[in-house]
Amino acid sequence: MLAEIITVGDELLLGQTIDTNSAWMGEKLALAGIAVERITTLSDEPAALVAALDLALESKGLVLITGGLGPTVDDRTKQVLSTYFKAPLVQNDEVLADITHWFSSRGFPMLPSNVDQALLPDTCEVLPNPQGTAQGMWFTVEGTDQVVVSMPGVPYEMKGIMVDEVIPRLVARFSLPTRYHRTVLTQGIGESFLSQHVASWEVGLVNRGVSIAYLPAPGQVRVRLSAVSENRDEGVRLVEQELSDFKLQCGDWIITDVEGESLAEAVVRTFTDEGMTFAVAESCTGGAIAASITAVPGSSACFVGGVVSYVNQVKINLLGVSPDTLEAHGAVSESVVKEMAEGALRTTGADFALATSGIAGPGGGSEHIPVGTIWIAIAGPNGVEARLLHFGQNRIRNIEKTRLEGQAWLLRKLKEYKSAVD
Amino acid sequence: MLAEIITVGDELLLGQTIDTNSAWMGEKLALAGIAVERITTLSDEPAALVAALDLALESKGLVLITGGLGPTVDDRTKQVLSTYFKAPLVQNDEVLADITHWFSSRGFPMLPSNVDQALLPDTCEVLPNPQGTAQGMWFTVEGTDQVVVSMPGVPYEMKGIMVDEVIPRLVARFSLPTRYHRTVLTQGIGESFLSQHVASWEVGLVNRGVSIAYLPAPGQVRVRLSAVSENRDEGVRLVEQELSDFKLQCGDWIITDVEGESLAEAVVRTFTDEGMTFAVAESCTGGAIAASITAVPGSSACFVGGVVSYVNQVKINLLGVSPDTLEAHGAVSESVVKEMAEGALRTTGADFALATSGIAGPGGGSEHIPVGTIWIAIAGPNGVEARLLHFGQNRIRNIEKTRLEGQAWLLRKLKEYKSAVD
Repeated sequence: MLAEIITVGDELLLGQTIDTNSAWMGEKLALAGIAVERITTLSDEPAALVAALDLALESKGLVLITGGLGPTVDDRTKQVLSTYFKAPLVQNDEVLADITHWFSSRGFPMLPSNVDQALLPDTCEVLPNPQGTAQGMWFTVEGTDQVVVSMPGVPYEMKGIMVDEVIPRLVARFSLPTRYHRTVLTQGIGESFLSQHVASWEVGLVNRGVSIAYLPAPGQVRVRLSAVSENRDEGVRLVEQELSDFKLQCGDWIITDVEGESLAEAVVRTFTDEGMTFAVAESCTGGAIAASITAVPGSSACFVGGVVSYVNQVKINLLGVSPDTLEAHGAVSESVVKEMAEGALRTTGADFALATSGIAGPGGGSEHIPVGTIWIAIAGPNGVEARLLHFGQNRIRNIEKTRLEGQAWLLRKLKEYKSAVD
Repeated sequence: MLAEIITVGDELLLGQTIDTNSAWMGEKLALAGIAVERITTLSDEPAALVAALDLALESKGLVLITGGLGPTVDDRTKQVLSTYFKAPLVQNDEVLADITHWFSSRGFPMLPSNVDQALLPDTCEVLPNPQGTAQGMWFTVEGTDQVVVSMPGVPYEMKGIMVDEVIPRLVARFSLPTRYHRTVLTQGIGESFLSQHVASWEVGLVNRGVSIAYLPAPGQVRVRLSAVSENRDEGVRLVEQELSDFKLQCGDWIITDVEGESLAEAVVRTFTDEGMTFAVAESCTGGAIAASITAVPGSSACFVGGVVSYVNQVKINLLGVSPDTLEAHGAVSESVVKEMAEGALRTTGADFALATSGIAGPGGGSEHIPVGTIWIAIAGPNGVEARLLHFGQNRIRNIEKTRLEGQAWLLRKLKEYKSAVD
């Protein structure tokens, strides 16, 4: 089945808001076996939505609209749909009760415009929105099998309605193929080199019933294997078989095969499962490693904290780095980054410590130590080790790449240690 | 003039990539006096682009296309445009020399597909792309004043071509109005309350020649004043006059009036200008404050670093928080957060220190101290002070809101101190 996504709102055209909804919806629909063929972004002008609906329904079985459902005067999607489908607005008492409860439980006053949100087109099925006051709406185009769905533009409200209402209804109504997929996160190898490495396995993969997608992000590539099949068990068997072959060939680069898990989440999960703790000593990454770890719920089970030692005096005072070492080798050196990691271990009592020191840029480089020169070190139960990285000129990318390299190395070090101990 | 943006690429429809280009282009065009009326996202299928071009040129004076210009077989935009405008592809020697240099200077081998990138439609004006190998193209629709521009989808390549080539050509070719704008960043007041506060000033603002836009982000609102006028001087006079009125009424909430500056950038700029330094002691924010500061180039001039004291032992070992205080009041308390700030000041030698301790969630809350309870403290030349914040259930938002509150308070404290000293 082909689908179109229509997003409504002047703020999208003016660049005040980036449309993240469409990408999220496109991925969820693709995984459900529905191909999005076009995304159209429109102003709040009613005539634009009418024209876009006409055009979409010429060829699409499904049209998903987000935006324009708020209580203010610039939100006109509901009125347009009421007219378009000749479905007069009537008060829905159940929805009114929900909205009234929504306001009273938060202690907010309720305005007439909020009451109006319980007015809904009489022929639509209401898709409840427990996280807001604008309901989703499901219309069937008369005399056809076509469906038009309207949802709020607030991302978490739209996502709730999509997951709880829209996808299950689509699956129930249309005979969509069964689709099973698994993803693995790789790091340390580019998309094209990874593909080259598994070239002989990739030959014939489609004929064996499995398709592969490379989803690159800066410094990482997520690989997705999926199968479309008559029954789910067959899809599971096909994908899991190919996945284990892929893992055999690419094990060195695989960070995690837990669905959707990020590197930071994999670090927190693995350290927590192993009952081990870690700390950081961050110079050039300036807190970015700690921040990405503590963004993960439950990270306090394995992360103890550490030091952001942006200037040398803090390296000396808080990590016990020797002023002589700093003097002799400079802050961006193997000796200093090792002392930083050892200092973090000693002062925090953690099992492992990850340290960084380098020139993130754009300033601060020299002929001898150019921008993008970065040392990382890991101290742990088996002593301390350091590695030298060379990146480019972009400060934000250098910080992010250092974070990724450091966390991936930390994860490997833990696994090495545990497999030697066990 | 009305414009349409067309973005091309299966990865956008499948949700593998979020279309950030359109929002950036929409804003730049709006500021140049060109209104984007529709954004359309299409697959790499040539027929889809032809249909979209036909539709766009029915009503738009300008069509901007991004994507589909790479060297691989799925990139077909150039071929489509060559056919659409009956402009055969011919080798452009100047472009070929640039591409050859691009590869040789990086030590990369050059493939036949890279040579093909010097083949360009014979009637288009080439828009040079110094950051990549796919050139921009400018077409004039025969017998009309309409313009179609094609650019690569890589964001920094597209941005370079827009700023250096497209905007200047549009300004030169079309008699666009002169537009002048200024933005100020506010914090601590919601969009609707801010608007209500300046309601009497807002009345008649449009008649006085200035329009206002509220650009909300989580916890902050950027306000933009702009004027469209015959000559630039008149626009500057109108906007600056209204801006100074706005600042008089809203001074308490204004973080910065430097164009486009973020809160973290304002903190770094102000501390650096004043020759003062600061440190952090982060518990619940877990490094997020430090990371956002060190993302700013030049932050080492004023930021010394600090401690991420995620567990109590690190608060004791590195910040000198008293075990008795922790025992008596718990980590999320006024006493502990003050000792953390004082400890950061003492151990780092900075002029100011910002500390955080709270329950970011989703776990860790209790009836007594629910999720979203957060203490922040600032220690400085005039002693230490703490404030209690109450946020919601969402971990990432709680961390981000704490960061914003903390940095804004730090900025105010510095300004208070300097104005008392001077």
